[in-house]
Amino acid sequence: MDFTDAVLKRRMVRQFTDEPVDPAIIDKLVELARHAPSAGFTQGQAFIIVSDPQIRKQVAKICGEEDYDTGGYGPWISQAPVQVIPCTSEAAYHRRYNEPDKKAPGEEEIVWPVPYWHMDVGCAVMVLLLGVVDEGLAAGFAGVFDPDGLRSLLGIPAEWTPVGVIPIGHPAPDKRSPSLKRGRVADAVYLHHEGW
Amino acid sequence: MDFTDAVLKRRMVRQFTDEPVDPAIIDKLVELARHAPSAGFTQGQAFIIVSDPQIRKQVAKICGEEDYDTGGYGPWISQAPVQVIPCTSEAAYHRRYNEPDKKAPGEEEIVWPVPYWHMDVGCAVMVLLLGVVDEGLAAGFAGVFDPDGLRSLLGIPAEWTPVGVIPIGHPAPDKRSPSLKRGRVADAVYLHHEGW
Repeated sequence: MDFTDAVLKRRMVRQFTDEPVDPAIIDKLVELARHAPSAGFTQGQAFIIVSDPQIRKQVAKICGEEDYDTGGYGPWISQAPVQVIPCTSEAAYHRRYNEPDKKAPGEEEIVWPVPYWHMDVGCAVMVLLLGVVDEGLAAGFAGVFDPDGLRSLLGIPAEWTPVGVIPIGHPAPDKRSPSLKRGRVADAVYLHHEGW
Repeated sequence: MDFTDAVLKRRMVRQFTDEPVDPAIIDKLVELARHAPSAGFTQGQAFIIVSDPQIRKQVAKICGEEDYDTGGYGPWISQAPVQVIPCTSEAAYHRRYNEPDKKAPGEEEIVWPVPYWHMDVGCAVMVLLLGVVDEGLAAGFAGVFDPDGLRSLLGIPAEWTPVGVIPIGHPAPDKRSPSLKRGRVADAVYLHHEGW
């Protein structure tokens, strides 16, 4: 699919059909997300693919699927045939920026005014979400508000933070997110030339 | 360009020719980046496009271009005909999640274990970087380690954090980043099935 078409076609979807998803496609998309950039080529990102129905249910519970259900979305996190869980490691960036090519002997590690580990996982997630559209599939995104719950369930090491759960499947007719009623932010806020 | 091709073709580029870039293309790409997702459709992202040569020089100085120069890259930040500066606002997310549809009366705002404002700006930046490739242009990325310096130079409000400077231009023969010598991280770290 044309790149621009993929960007314009992408929506957050919260309803999926029962049709299964070829696991090879998901592996391919996660592999493609590896081509996202990272500070110092740290690559401090990792992905967990979950397709087991019981584990999907537990993941969905930790993500507060019941609350979404109350909002009228139904059990969209557990019903999607695949969940992809992106993780990021701040520690990996600290290790990388203590390597000799990033720090002269006796110097301190750089100070990080921006947590690039979170920005970089955003880049990787964007590639994945666009790749899903490119494959004729659909994806949503559930925020993670209990990272320790997911760490415990999935055996994620302490230094890795699961930043979301991305349910993927074949799209079904969907309920439009009420957040979209907000409309786009004003151009005068979003875009500036030569200065704010 | 095909979506997958854009992902595979994208590189961080640090050398640009003198050829100017059509400002309409940059406006179009930043507009396309607006289609990246954001938590609660907060859209807490903004972009500054800088083409004025004097301002570009000042931006480059704040980004430590001299240090890159020592590393053999030359003045790649100031020489690119366009710089795009993505910004993100944590405050915008707090305001959004204090709106009635996100918080019942008397409730507290959600706790944020993940700074989605940084992840979301990563998504928008990824769309921009891929769009640059789609247009036959090239882009690099300079981290921002003096956000106050950029705020002061460009009049960026205190609540907005400039997270990078993206020089954009027509690609010239480039010096490969030494970070790439690290190679890809092991599959066993990057990809997991059903659990870590």
